[in-house]
Amino acid sequence: MGKKLTKRKDDYSKWYNELVVGADLAENSGVRGCMVIKPYGFAIWEKMQAALDKMFKDTGHENAYFPLFIPKSYLSKEASHVEGFAKECAVVTHYRLKNADDGSGIIVDPDAKLEEELIVRPTSETIIWDTYRRWIQSYRDLPLLINQWANVVRWEMRTRLFLRTAEFLWQEGHTAHATKEEAIEEAEQMMNVYAEFAEKHMAMPVIRGLKTETERFAGAVETYCIEALMQDGKALQAGTSHFLGQNFAKAFDVKFANKEGKQEYVWATSWGVSTRLMGALIMSHSDDNGLVLPPKLAPIQVVIVPIYKGLEQLDAISEKVGPLVKELRAKGISVKYDDRDTQKPGFKFNEYELKGVPVRLAIGQRDLANGTYEVARRDTLQKEIVPMDKVVEKIEFLLEDIQKNIYQKALDFKASHITEVNSYDEFKTVLEEKGGFISAHWDGTPETENRIKEETKATIRCIPIDGKNEAGTCMVTGKTSNKRVLFAKAY
Amino acid sequence: MGKKLTKRKDDYSKWYNELVVGADLAENSGVRGCMVIKPYGFAIWEKMQAALDKMFKDTGHENAYFPLFIPKSYLSKEASHVEGFAKECAVVTHYRLKNADDGSGIIVDPDAKLEEELIVRPTSETIIWDTYRRWIQSYRDLPLLINQWANVVRWEMRTRLFLRTAEFLWQEGHTAHATKEEAIEEAEQMMNVYAEFAEKHMAMPVIRGLKTETERFAGAVETYCIEALMQDGKALQAGTSHFLGQNFAKAFDVKFANKEGKQEYVWATSWGVSTRLMGALIMSHSDDNGLVLPPKLAPIQVVIVPIYKGLEQLDAISEKVGPLVKELRAKGISVKYDDRDTQKPGFKFNEYELKGVPVRLAIGQRDLANGTYEVARRDTLQKEIVPMDKVVEKIEFLLEDIQKNIYQKALDFKASHITEVNSYDEFKTVLEEKGGFISAHWDGTPETENRIKEETKATIRCIPIDGKNEAGTCMVTGKTSNKRVLFAKAY
Repeated sequence: MGKKLTKRKDDYSKWYNELVVGADLAENSGVRGCMVIKPYGFAIWEKMQAALDKMFKDTGHENAYFPLFIPKSYLSKEASHVEGFAKECAVVTHYRLKNADDGSGIIVDPDAKLEEELIVRPTSETIIWDTYRRWIQSYRDLPLLINQWANVVRWEMRTRLFLRTAEFLWQEGHTAHATKEEAIEEAEQMMNVYAEFAEKHMAMPVIRGLKTETERFAGAVETYCIEALMQDGKALQAGTSHFLGQNFAKAFDVKFANKEGKQEYVWATSWGVSTRLMGALIMSHSDDNGLVLPPKLAPIQVVIVPIYKGLEQLDAISEKVGPLVKELRAKGISVKYDDRDTQKPGFKFNEYELKGVPVRLAIGQRDLANGTYEVARRDTLQKEIVPMDKVVEKIEFLLEDIQKNIYQKALDFKASHITEVNSYDEFKTVLEEKGGFISAHWDGTPETENRIKEETKATIRCIPIDGKNEAGTCMVTGKTSNKRVLFAKAY
Repeated sequence: MGKKLTKRKDDYSKWYNELVVGADLAENSGVRGCMVIKPYGFAIWEKMQAALDKMFKDTGHENAYFPLFIPKSYLSKEASHVEGFAKECAVVTHYRLKNADDGSGIIVDPDAKLEEELIVRPTSETIIWDTYRRWIQSYRDLPLLINQWANVVRWEMRTRLFLRTAEFLWQEGHTAHATKEEAIEEAEQMMNVYAEFAEKHMAMPVIRGLKTETERFAGAVETYCIEALMQDGKALQAGTSHFLGQNFAKAFDVKFANKEGKQEYVWATSWGVSTRLMGALIMSHSDDNGLVLPPKLAPIQVVIVPIYKGLEQLDAISEKVGPLVKELRAKGISVKYDDRDTQKPGFKFNEYELKGVPVRLAIGQRDLANGTYEVARRDTLQKEIVPMDKVVEKIEFLLEDIQKNIYQKALDFKASHITEVNSYDEFKTVLEEKGGFISAHWDGTPETENRIKEETKATIRCIPIDGKNEAGTCMVTGKTSNKRVLFAKAY
């Protein structure tokens, strides 16, 4: 806690890791690539979950739960899906351990080999569509709008807390529809739900777009996404929503009788966001002093630190603070009165700055005499003296203002980091010197996309939804193009 | 839906399975022993989760998340724990699949064998105490009061929906304390929290008690439990809370510096309830017509069914129902207006009876003319005609009354199914003819306990917390005993 963070400009990646651990958000576990989400980090995730869950339910979705394990044969049923997901996964081959005969310890019981291996779900399309076959017979059963909160596993070789871990937490929506149009509408709706969540709750502006074929989800016809920009100029894919066409319905033979009694294949979508959003949240707003949290997602919105010598002074302070805490809580504001006598005020100030608590109140002897609090806001680090009878109003104002202010700051940053270029040289220069999103013409081929990726490490983040048609030529091949796409280096 | 359930008296087990599937609670999946929890069943589980989560937080606990996988060596560190949990578990041995060279499909890549096998957590003591070693240094870090909502896997050979499944959902609390007394207090507190939840929310009376050594959690010094009684006279363990002593602290070397600076091992508890509670809930109250749900856990508390011919009649009804729905929702009552034109009222009545919706309103032409609703309560199946201006009041009364009534009914059933016996013959007769809990003297030895189990299939469910000391002699061996224990056949 006493140790200062590495500065962002000196080593952004080191700053991030120190911050995640220092602010008690998460840490690596003894299991390769798997993290422990600590209580403070998990409390933020719970707030995200609650807000998202409400948005899903408000748009007509229900939660359910499907098995953790997927029989190996299920994965193979959708050809492009298995190519994308079978490579890096945890495979369960046995169902029992036993004591070794030679007393050397516990070993896998060779007699307990599974007939068919089970894969720990990397995503649940296959097991869910195997289930939907039983649930869907008629148009009356549609649309089927289901979400699941779950853990998934993808065997990543290089992992980073929240951003890329072998096991992560997420939600995955899986919907079934009678028509193509309705399924596309659903996929677009969920992209918009994610964008609204990112902007309103996380205070993180995003760009809505479509993925290119190369970057599409394995098994999707179209992948919608929201892309955010981190402070180091790298993009982060924050959520995806897939129009799956009839691919999974055909793979799992899910048909319905339409109103005319004719059998048709069902249309599908799936969409998800994960604990990766925690990484996005951290990197969107935080500074060299620590985390900066949007008030809407802060587990502690207001902390009150007493400054005192001896129990008598503390009692006098607590007498003032007690009713304030009560009043704030009645307004639904999460407040912590930190009267621990094991730590000094300076230590506490640093701790809450590191943990990103939006508003900090301090109260000492002079404040008591004057009837004031010292009020500090985390985003700008500004402090002011506020009379006690105005402090609730001030806090309410600050919680709204901080939410707005950090969003605006991130929005300005994003706006100043979208650069239009018209040549490949210019592209490379901007990518190296400035980073951010680069808007350029591209000929629409995977070959050119891959060449750019190999030569510069930049990928096409998306074809923006609100991009205008504009005649142009591909910056690499000179072939014609009718729309700019956004490139960036990405997490 | 049209098909009647098997009657409880004809085949209780068949009745249960048909009810779970018929009421859309859960079903078996394509993965052996793993269930799919359907939206309606999951909505009940979410209500349970929300109530429990609040109770945990109100008693000072925070949520966190620990890895799904446990390295094999961790399990072995606590000797009795590994004996209890290593036997039936899912073992991950590889981390990649690949296309077979002979084109026969996807196979496990033999080059991707893990150095150390990973076990899918059957419970998380080991991975959590491995983490606590890093989190606990000083008495200032204690108590550590943490809960996790998670999925766990135990490779059960014979499974039943909700009651015994290979994968299930649960919460597991894991706390660390400076003193033995505080840890015991915590274990007792959580047993009481579970009992309160069972009685107040599930309307399910329970008996609080201690497990015998034989029935104790593998690694615990003492296991507290709540035991409920199902309608077929069998007991169901509904929740357990363990005082773990210093067993895991010693196995994982978790010490703290006490106030005098001396290093001591930490004291531990763990406690959990699972989706098994869904089975308990179903079997506590339901009848031959279907589910009976306590209003506090019912996803739909009130359903309104219009009875009409043609759109004009429906419109007239909807005009009356609209404001009622709004008024009920404003009071926090969950209400569904089922105006589907694809199903007849009789079908809907059966469906909501099967699904255990506590209060059903019907409204037809005569009701419209008279300004009334027909109000039916699910628990007693009684109906009455209620004037529109009294219907909200009536609904509020019914939701409270049903909650009370089904609790009282279960309480009476339990009270009439605790039988004191003083001989082994009497014991066997009561067990066969009546079932329920049998209160008897036992000599305190595992040998006698095992003999009774082998001969009668009854186990000691618990040594009741509120049992009185009473001199007696073991019904089997005649040895002295100073307290009665409760036997039953159990799920």
